[in-house]
Amino acid sequence: MTFLNQSKRQKLHEAIFEAETPLGKFFDILLIAAILASVTVVMLESVGSLDREYGKLFDLLEWIFTILFTLEYLARIASLKKPKFYIQSFYGIIDLLSVLPTYLSLLFTGTQALMVLRIMRLLRIFRVLKLVRFLSEANKLFNALRASMPKIIVFLVGVICINLIVGTLMYIVEGGENGFDSIPRSIYWAIVTMTTVGYGDIAPATVAGQTLASCIMILGYGIIAVPTGIVTSEIHLAKSKLISTEACPACGSEGHESDAKFCKFCGTKM
Amino acid sequence: MTFLNQSKRQKLHEAIFEAETPLGKFFDILLIAAILASVTVVMLESVGSLDREYGKLFDLLEWIFTILFTLEYLARIASLKKPKFYIQSFYGIIDLLSVLPTYLSLLFTGTQALMVLRIMRLLRIFRVLKLVRFLSEANKLFNALRASMPKIIVFLVGVICINLIVGTLMYIVEGGENGFDSIPRSIYWAIVTMTTVGYGDIAPATVAGQTLASCIMILGYGIIAVPTGIVTSEIHLAKSKLISTEACPACGSEGHESDAKFCKFCGTKM
Amino acid sequence: MTFLNQSKRQKLHEAIFEAETPLGKFFDILLIAAILASVTVVMLESVGSLDREYGKLFDLLEWIFTILFTLEYLARIASLKKPKFYIQSFYGIIDLLSVLPTYLSLLFTGTQALMVLRIMRLLRIFRVLKLVRFLSEANKLFNALRASMPKIIVFLVGVICINLIVGTLMYIVEGGENGFDSIPRSIYWAIVTMTTVGYGDIAPATVAGQTLASCIMILGYGIIAVPTGIVTSEIHLAKSKLISTEACPACGSEGHESDAKFCKFCGTKM
Amino acid sequence: MTFLNQSKRQKLHEAIFEAETPLGKFFDILLIAAILASVTVVMLESVGSLDREYGKLFDLLEWIFTILFTLEYLARIASLKKPKFYIQSFYGIIDLLSVLPTYLSLLFTGTQALMVLRIMRLLRIFRVLKLVRFLSEANKLFNALRASMPKIIVFLVGVICINLIVGTLMYIVEGGENGFDSIPRSIYWAIVTMTTVGYGDIAPATVAGQTLASCIMILGYGIIAVPTGIVTSEIHLAKSKLISTEACPACGSEGHESDAKFCKFCGTKM
Repeated sequence: MTFLNQSKRQKLHEAIFEAETPLGKFFDILLIAAILASVTVVMLESVGSLDREYGKLFDLLEWIFTILFTLEYLARIASLKKPKFYIQSFYGIIDLLSVLPTYLSLLFTGTQALMVLRIMRLLRIFRVLKLVRFLSEANKLFNALRASMPKIIVFLVGVICINLIVGTLMYIVEGGENGFDSIPRSIYWAIVTMTTVGYGDIAPATVAGQTLASCIMILGYGIIAVPTGIVTSEIHLAKSKLISTEACPACGSEGHESDAKFCKFCGTKM
Repeated sequence: MTFLNQSKRQKLHEAIFEAETPLGKFFDILLIAAILASVTVVMLESVGSLDREYGKLFDLLEWIFTILFTLEYLARIASLKKPKFYIQSFYGIIDLLSVLPTYLSLLFTGTQALMVLRIMRLLRIFRVLKLVRFLSEANKLFNALRASMPKIIVFLVGVICINLIVGTLMYIVEGGENGFDSIPRSIYWAIVTMTTVGYGDIAPATVAGQTLASCIMILGYGIIAVPTGIVTSEIHLAKSKLISTEACPACGSEGHESDAKFCKFCGTKM
Repeated sequence: MTFLNQSKRQKLHEAIFEAETPLGKFFDILLIAAILASVTVVMLESVGSLDREYGKLFDLLEWIFTILFTLEYLARIASLKKPKFYIQSFYGIIDLLSVLPTYLSLLFTGTQALMVLRIMRLLRIFRVLKLVRFLSEANKLFNALRASMPKIIVFLVGVICINLIVGTLMYIVEGGENGFDSIPRSIYWAIVTMTTVGYGDIAPATVAGQTLASCIMILGYGIIAVPTGIVTSEIHLAKSKLISTEACPACGSEGHESDAKFCKFCGTKM
Repeated sequence: MTFLNQSKRQKLHEAIFEAETPLGKFFDILLIAAILASVTVVMLESVGSLDREYGKLFDLLEWIFTILFTLEYLARIASLKKPKFYIQSFYGIIDLLSVLPTYLSLLFTGTQALMVLRIMRLLRIFRVLKLVRFLSEANKLFNALRASMPKIIVFLVGVICINLIVGTLMYIVEGGENGFDSIPRSIYWAIVTMTTVGYGDIAPATVAGQTLASCIMILGYGIIAVPTGIVTSEIHLAKSKLISTEACPACGSEGHESDAKFCKFCGTKM
């Protein structure tokens, strides 16, 4: 599999996989630009009027991008000693899946199948997310999001339970009319309302319904403060408390602050 | 009442009422799955097209779930020494109320009464909320919510007062037209607007009305910061309260955690 | 003016103006109930169908409430040594203005004038706000709101400036069509959008307009974090830092923490 | 260029460029009033019905304001020793651009060109933003906004990526119907929904679409907590950073403010 000599492979590896070196940075910026351009082409293709006029240009561009990304995919494999791990990894599969559709479009001709294939190219957007993550700002944000995810999820489960109950109540109150013609639809309305989105495609028309709607709106407006408070507190604590990972040599207790010189439980010097 | 011997009852009690043991956990997960499945059936029944096609299947499933939950209800009573407390408790009544409707549907035949009965089965959802509360994340969130409830309620009372005033003003400004045909409806509009839901079923059409609407929107957008700030501060204080106010008798240093038995700077017993 | 003897006036004063004593509390709760009931009557009167059916009942109730509040107004004046201050105060004027309309309705007969008079009765709601403020929770919230008002106002001025610019841009981009037929209307749309209310009575139809709209939506969604952050920080600081008002006896410097035993600038004992 | 003598130029400079002196303050307030008045005129001109009736008055006012701002522009140049820097600065260009259109309107007569020229006068609003910045409250807010911008931007990039993916999914799910007729339009809908604006001009009609919509709404409602948390933490840290890490050499106590010259507990020089 290794059809490149040692030094060339290292050079290639540096350009493709490293983000710190000038060569690596240049390659990353080029890659993001190419991905964004190819994603834009896929999107514009979906606009009927543009596709009729510039359809051939879009096809051409798509082939150019596909060949570029195919070369990138092969280069990644060539630059690695053990390409198996890359090929089986999440990004390896994405890279392959986003390139395949254009080749498959030569074989298939059903329009429905083609549309799904075309859109698979949009998977490339995940690559951008990966590259952005190298930025330290994004990294902090990502960590904060991951740290607060369990609490946010529990909060959202609670919100969903409230929506189930309110949606059902609304179905009874509005008597299955004014768009509230089934419980799932009423729950959909409750979610639209409580998250303060408020399309207006379904809106209560009876007095009782509008009163109930007012309650859930005010509830939704008020409890947004709870996840916000918890996340803020979490982030703040993570920043301010520098808990050492060191265990006390005498009593084995953990959770000491990083500035502690003596174990706070047994008084032994640390 | 105790028609089970001591050891069998204990085993049953462990499975049903405890969440820590493997048997208890298995039972809880099974129960949540059964509740969610039965709730889904009730919801799908309310969709006209599905009910016409799968009505008999839904009826069958409903009977299976009802029998299962009846057995669970009897098992709970059998496993307790003094089942009276359980029967009279909030969850005991919910368990009974969510099972009764299916049996009552054999007696009654009015469609309106039937619908309300069917929906009473959705009360089972409260059981899920109870089981979820055992999770520590949910518990923290629940405590935070309870702690900040009085302040959020006072804030919401203030919001409601503002809405009463703005709704009335709007009724005068729009002159009872463009959907603002009574004060309660105008207040409903004010709530929809200030909570940033914005259905659009009622919207001001005059210049004065739109100016007033702009003011309340900007107000609603700005004061959401107040409950958020208060809740955040409350949560944060609750967390950081663990710092003792006691100073070290030897070195006078402060900021020790409340569980510290020795000064972390000089090792003196506190 | 003082047609009551000393002890009777004191008793009356206690009931009406004090909130701590059992008598005062009882009076306050009664007053809030009466205000809420009278406000509800005014609101229901504005609903056409209800007014046609229960118009006479509403008139009767309104007269009962008016006489009650007139008695309360006279009692307040009688219970004070110097009633002039009360009569000229904000709440004194409100109390008078909310009672006058019913009497004036005997003189005037124009429907338009009558409606405005009727609604003036709603001014009583301000009384509720005043009574609620005695609650400590409400007091804290009120202080937090007042402390963070200047920053929230500056933030909102910034938001309005952005809205002016975006609204004007939108007027040019949509070319005065799709509801964007003047700059003030476009600004109204920008406010509706940026505060995430989103009625949908005006919505961009061109590609450029929708792109610009997306930008302002995302901006509005993101910068809500700024006032929230500032208010939270303000509240938190107010709670945690107990700055003493004491000035140093030697150097006159201020802003010392309340636990400081020596001036931090000159070292003098405080 | 300097056609004014030294003392006169200084006086002028003080009035125009300084905000602290009484003369400078008076000039600033006058300038803000003039700008707001002229901006209001431009806006009212865009309202068809008002322009037909008061068109001549608006033209007259516009000429008065233009001459005033031209005089101000010339005075600024005259009051500076090296006016080149001012002329080339951001505000210098804005001042010129907001005055030019009225003069150019004498030359051009095309209505489209005239509209764009008229609206350029609105650039004056930036001057207000500059003057407001002198307020200390606004300054703090501006700094907080600038400090948290990188994190908010990264968050918004993440939000946009999610919107691209959800918009595309929605295009497939709704099958190009119900308003989702191209990927860019579906992405526009996703942004409208996730930022909780919710116009309702495009709304999902299929069950799968409404389910997906519910998910993105709940996600948008939940993750607003993340930027809020990060910004709050940032602001809070910036404020509390003023605590020195230095310990007192005599008593070893910590937590002194960075401006402290003496230990606040024992009075020793630090």
